[in-house]
Amino acid sequence: MSYNMVEFLAHAIAMEEEAAERYLELADMMEAHNNLEVQKLFRDMNRYSILHRDSIQERAGSLELPKLKSWQYRWVAPTEVGGEEGFDYNLDPYQALEYARANEARARDFYAIVAKSTEDEEIKKLATDFAAEEQEHTDALDEQLSNTIRKQN
Amino acid sequence: MSYNMVEFLAHAIAMEEEAAERYLELADMMEAHNNLEVQKLFRDMNRYSILHRDSIQERAGSLELPKLKSWQYRWVAPTEVGGEEGFDYNLDPYQALEYARANEARARDFYAIVAKSTEDEEIKKLATDFAAEEQEHTDALDEQLSNTIRKQN
Repeated sequence: MSYNMVEFLAHAIAMEEEAAERYLELADMMEAHNNLEVQKLFRDMNRYSILHRDSIQERAGSLELPKLKSWQYRWVAPTEVGGEEGFDYNLDPYQALEYARANEARARDFYAIVAKSTEDEEIKKLATDFAAEEQEHTDALDEQLSNTIRKQN
Repeated sequence: MSYNMVEFLAHAIAMEEEAAERYLELADMMEAHNNLEVQKLFRDMNRYSILHRDSIQERAGSLELPKLKSWQYRWVAPTEVGGEEGFDYNLDPYQALEYARANEARARDFYAIVAKSTEDEEIKKLATDFAAEEQEHTDALDEQLSNTIRKQN
């Protein structure tokens, strides 16, 4: 795996954009659950994702970015989804947090792998910073998970 | 699982729209692979999905449709994607066909379950028709799969 700067920035922007949309969706779902604490966390994450995307976009400037395939940046479905109830599944707060956590960890791993494998010092620095940021998000979700009750099925 | 008509139509439209976008993506990828046969199949599937979406939308008329959560209609990632190469994965024709097939089968199962579980005769009829259509798509992909060489990894 080897990215040049425009490919790397295109990935980062697409991933932040996707995360922002998913956090909004999760926040709305938590509002429907009347879980204001988890809702607030997701709204904060939505805001951070947008800010991060904007700052990466600013860095990209007028570079023409490649169009990515959906599976290169989209969040993967909640693990609980699938099978008979897969299509009208409502996530409870614990499942929503797990879902977000899995995708944040995936993003962190992506940046960590890029940081490790690139020979471009600027990409290495950016990817290392981004991996650390995603790690912070993962930690925040872990903390909230430890305060959230897992629904018994 | 129980849907009323607007929920059912909202799902069907979102699923067809998603399928149309993914088929376009896969067709472009096959063009890059110089595989014209599989490209043509995906472009046909893209067109069928758009036609089907339009006819469902027409049926929905001026009904206000609910907004769905992304995991209720989005395609699930190719099974081969994930892990270290997950983010810059290029699908070869066989993998692309398998990916599409898995998602068509998932759509078929969704409609079949709705058809089986609804007590609304109109929804039952529509869902049965849609399941049969998705089965046809699954069969077409199976046929193409049997003519496509699996890349050795």
